[in-house]
Amino acid sequence: MVRPGGRSARVQESVHAAVRALEAEAGREALTVPLIAARAGVTPSTIYRRWGDLHELLSDVAVERLRPDSPPEDHGSLGADLAAWAEQFLEEMSAQPGRAYIRDALLGDDTNAGRCSAYAADQISVILARAAQRGEAAPEAETVLDHVVAPMMYRILFRPDGLSPTYARRLVEELLG
Amino acid sequence: MVRPGGRSARVQESVHAAVRALEAEAGREALTVPLIAARAGVTPSTIYRRWGDLHELLSDVAVERLRPDSPPEDHGSLGADLAAWAEQFLEEMSAQPGRAYIRDALLGDDTNAGRCSAYAADQISVILARAAQRGEAAPEAETVLDHVVAPMMYRILFRPDGLSPTYARRLVEELLG
Repeated sequence: MVRPGGRSARVQESVHAAVRALEAEAGREALTVPLIAARAGVTPSTIYRRWGDLHELLSDVAVERLRPDSPPEDHGSLGADLAAWAEQFLEEMSAQPGRAYIRDALLGDDTNAGRCSAYAADQISVILARAAQRGEAAPEAETVLDHVVAPMMYRILFRPDGLSPTYARRLVEELLG
Repeated sequence: MVRPGGRSARVQESVHAAVRALEAEAGREALTVPLIAARAGVTPSTIYRRWGDLHELLSDVAVERLRPDSPPEDHGSLGADLAAWAEQFLEEMSAQPGRAYIRDALLGDDTNAGRCSAYAADQISVILARAAQRGEAAPEAETVLDHVVAPMMYRILFRPDGLSPTYARRLVEELLG
């Protein structure tokens, strides 16, 4: 919705950068809207008008940090592509920063959690489109979400003990097997 | 760990009751530790000592509200028991109060989210033990968590649009094949 390079995009980038910098310097607990505004060179009311409150802003920043910065790697087959993607997803999301970003994302507006899930769905769709181009039979993206992404995310949030790359690979094998 | 009926149990009960009453009367945003302490007839330091902060207390109260108050109903077969349980779980957890309790539970210590998941695992274990007694073949509880509970919880948290009892039943049917 936001015109790239416009004022709105510049405000977003400077406020996000201020949150990341202040969090790294002073820690999460020290963040306040006036502090972030001063660092970003905007007024607090600009932040309140755009994000509503600190929680929504932190949630928005967290979602941006969860955005994948490249398409999934091509390993030559659906099984290999999906296993590699699932392993990497589990590793990133179960590490301490990943878990903190997911929690923050869940604290904001529903659309923030939806954006996280859309990132995963988009990556999976790239993998499935590649499989179709190779002539491989492939499940629906929704099915991959249910059988691979959902179990990983459920365990990351609710039962994190003992998660391993083997678990991610096993979910993919069971789905494709 | 807490002796039932002991002072510790009485403090927990009165503090939890105070949170529920104040939340119903004044709303979530109005809750503060001093207000809750006054209503519960304890000192604020009792609350800080036991729960750490308001978030942890709200998380603990939310988990208690998610505790099932009866074993799953017996419908005579594994498929019927699991489908009925999954439908009810989805209905409760996707309604506004259920979603708020899950979010609160996730905000607290990791053990709080673990307790939520243990409630589901315990209910599923009852259903699976019944199936074993009837001589029915049954999956592992962990498998039911991965293939039925996890997809429902993932969608409740990240993609809540269009959830229906049909979805819960379909997950059970796909698992039991």
